[in-house]
Amino acid sequence: MTVITSLHELQTGRVNLAEPVGFVPTMGYLHAGHLSLVQRARQECASVVVSIFVNPAQFGPNEDLDKYPRNLSRDLEMLAGAGVDLIWTPTAEVMYPSDFQTWVTVEGLSQPLEGIVRPDHFRGVATVVTKLFNAVQPQKAYFGQKDAQQVAVIRRMSRDLNFPVEIIVCPTVREPDGLALSSRNTYLSPDERAAATILFRALSAAEAVFKNGERNADAIRGVMLEILQAEPLAQAQYVSCADYDTLDELKMIRGRALLSMAVFLGKTRLIDNRILEET
Amino acid sequence: MTVITSLHELQTGRVNLAEPVGFVPTMGYLHAGHLSLVQRARQECASVVVSIFVNPAQFGPNEDLDKYPRNLSRDLEMLAGAGVDLIWTPTAEVMYPSDFQTWVTVEGLSQPLEGIVRPDHFRGVATVVTKLFNAVQPQKAYFGQKDAQQVAVIRRMSRDLNFPVEIIVCPTVREPDGLALSSRNTYLSPDERAAATILFRALSAAEAVFKNGERNADAIRGVMLEILQAEPLAQAQYVSCADYDTLDELKMIRGRALLSMAVFLGKTRLIDNRILEET
Repeated sequence: MTVITSLHELQTGRVNLAEPVGFVPTMGYLHAGHLSLVQRARQECASVVVSIFVNPAQFGPNEDLDKYPRNLSRDLEMLAGAGVDLIWTPTAEVMYPSDFQTWVTVEGLSQPLEGIVRPDHFRGVATVVTKLFNAVQPQKAYFGQKDAQQVAVIRRMSRDLNFPVEIIVCPTVREPDGLALSSRNTYLSPDERAAATILFRALSAAEAVFKNGERNADAIRGVMLEILQAEPLAQAQYVSCADYDTLDELKMIRGRALLSMAVFLGKTRLIDNRILEET
Repeated sequence: MTVITSLHELQTGRVNLAEPVGFVPTMGYLHAGHLSLVQRARQECASVVVSIFVNPAQFGPNEDLDKYPRNLSRDLEMLAGAGVDLIWTPTAEVMYPSDFQTWVTVEGLSQPLEGIVRPDHFRGVATVVTKLFNAVQPQKAYFGQKDAQQVAVIRRMSRDLNFPVEIIVCPTVREPDGLALSSRNTYLSPDERAAATILFRALSAAEAVFKNGERNADAIRGVMLEILQAEPLAQAQYVSCADYDTLDELKMIRGRALLSMAVFLGKTRLIDNRILEET
């Protein structure tokens, strides 16, 4: 397991990796969700590269860039024994030199949901993933379904820009009580942590009424909102029932729909989602 | 020499090419300038790929997309015997499917000069070059100095996005009387063609006063403008003396400067440039 910071060392190291190369981009402070991506890459690829980079370009001016949790030695410990060949930990100066000026924008899919409250977020994501793909040159790249809109943006970007990279989406890993794993869970107080299961419960309730035949999207959103509103520590920012491919809000569910939400627990903003599919 | 239209065939064909692969992206209607790029690629690389694609995304709504000259059989004839391994001629539908929505923007360098009169031009260029690079995966890519701002944009984009592609810039090829080769020269009437040497003459005069010690950028621009204004068939759109790297307009020339201009001959818009360098 080699840890590398410069782009040049990465490119040199990349030459000697057996192909196919599987790639897991992360912002560090790893949890079992990240490890599930690494494990899947290990199963499917001859080599595995992990990047650890807290990407400033995907944080808004009032977001948590400075306090975002970082602990490289803890991350390296978690990855030891996971079969990773190469870990790339570039600095912000390597990724964004002072005269940096090139941006990748996925126009439609970046606008709704997270895009409304985080206007430049997906521009930052698409740009850094382009840079990471070009530097690492993987055959396969692994992302978690937890960040559903990010997955939609990256799949579209990869197709639109002809990246020769297969995008593989892995299931959200959850705590036993249903809370989706996230590096931001570390911000939660004990009371907020207990209340944070409300996202999972709202999504599960919506899925239950869907399975009972409900197809009206307003009714589905209503089920989620009602549950969220019953939790005094939770403040919903949005609740969505959208087309899986376009992310357009639906009136009636046909085919695949994406339920998603952003909810504040105190100052901590959590997101979660569920895919509904007619069988 | 294999001619391929689909992305899938290109990717299949690419696997069997000896590396390094040299790539010459073109909009077709080839001339000796394009052939000089192919020749250089042939000298430096084990395989050569040429793309022919009139990229709609780099034409403005009132520009010459529809009448831009096209003649594939003539292009293929010119490339026969040039040592090209693979020619990719994608359709607009392959490159821009109806739900295409991802754009690459080089912010600063796209704005001055051509960017003022062609606001989305370099977004179209940067996006198509990203797509072509990802599809062809060359080790080296060849561009003509004739399109000086395009070269600046692509070099910056390639560096900013970590493309593992060496950008090689080749000298402008000219007619014996100095006119820079361009597919658009075919639009010129005989009178306009005769008057079109005015761009070369203005640049040469500016270089001469520079070599005589003139460093004031306004004086240099003045020399070019005066010559252009003396030609009744020519109408200058802009005349620039800018920093070579940033494209910012200069007051005084220090280091490398880019002289450039856009001039109408009737309805035909021609560009040309010259690099000035203190020795």
